[in-house]
Amino acid sequence: METQNVSKLVNSFGASVLSVGQSVGLSVILDKGAIGPGVNAPGSRAAALIGFVGGGLQGTVAIMIDGNAFDGFVTAMSGGLLKADLDDPVALSVLGELTNMVSGQAIMKLGVQGLDITPPQIITGENIKSVPSKSEGVRNFTLPFHVNDGRLFLVLTIHS
Amino acid sequence: METQNVSKLVNSFGASVLSVGQSVGLSVILDKGAIGPGVNAPGSRAAALIGFVGGGLQGTVAIMIDGNAFDGFVTAMSGGLLKADLDDPVALSVLGELTNMVSGQAIMKLGVQGLDITPPQIITGENIKSVPSKSEGVRNFTLPFHVNDGRLFLVLTIHS
Repeated sequence: METQNVSKLVNSFGASVLSVGQSVGLSVILDKGAIGPGVNAPGSRAAALIGFVGGGLQGTVAIMIDGNAFDGFVTAMSGGLLKADLDDPVALSVLGELTNMVSGQAIMKLGVQGLDITPPQIITGENIKSVPSKSEGVRNFTLPFHVNDGRLFLVLTIHS
Repeated sequence: METQNVSKLVNSFGASVLSVGQSVGLSVILDKGAIGPGVNAPGSRAAALIGFVGGGLQGTVAIMIDGNAFDGFVTAMSGGLLKADLDDPVALSVLGELTNMVSGQAIMKLGVQGLDITPPQIITGENIKSVPSKSEGVRNFTLPFHVNDGRLFLVLTIHS
């Protein structure tokens, strides 16, 4: 994958986080100062991962969030009906749905034909970190965001 | 996806874990007694996830391991050259490579045309758990294994 297309992909996913956040009524801000090669989503409590394949693209996207950002999204997207309990699969499915929405919008914006996505796989834990791949031909990008008083990280791993 | 094909897929991934384990000289045993709907890979320290899409299939596979199983695989697959340090991206790339090998073998065994996989995305943390999806049309399977004195969980999330 060409560098130009990779940055288009990264930008597209970043813009989708902002627009999905706005559409559910949350203040989501890209933390430009924290973008860098060392960023690995420290302190996250939950992650939802989706794979995308097709049209010459192969990659995964993970949305990783801390407790405060999880609280913000669960409250906003359930209209206050769900409690942000990290042990509740139904509350966690909000994170899967968020990752679905972000991926769907990003892929629509990209306009790549034949790109298909997997269902989200959800992981919880303490101090979850994303580890950049050292494999040849694999590129990693982390976009850090502020959500209310919490953090959200979008991690892209792309075969290029 | 039909039930028959889903169980073929699950069996194929399970057999690949056993055969890859054997090929690197490790004792890997399917923990049949622990298979069940509530299994969610408790106590894991690292996970590598791969998405697969094509030929009517969409899913993700995660291999999740505890510290002892990580130690076993890193030592075996690096010929003792690498230390199983969970903070070392190079040691963690062994887990990504393991997931690549298992996925590659499983997909070859299945013989599905046009099935393509993503590069692995690697996550570390404490008490990592997989959360079964509650979304309609999504099925989750966890296969628990013993590796030396550690645990390995293979988690499949399939759109069906």
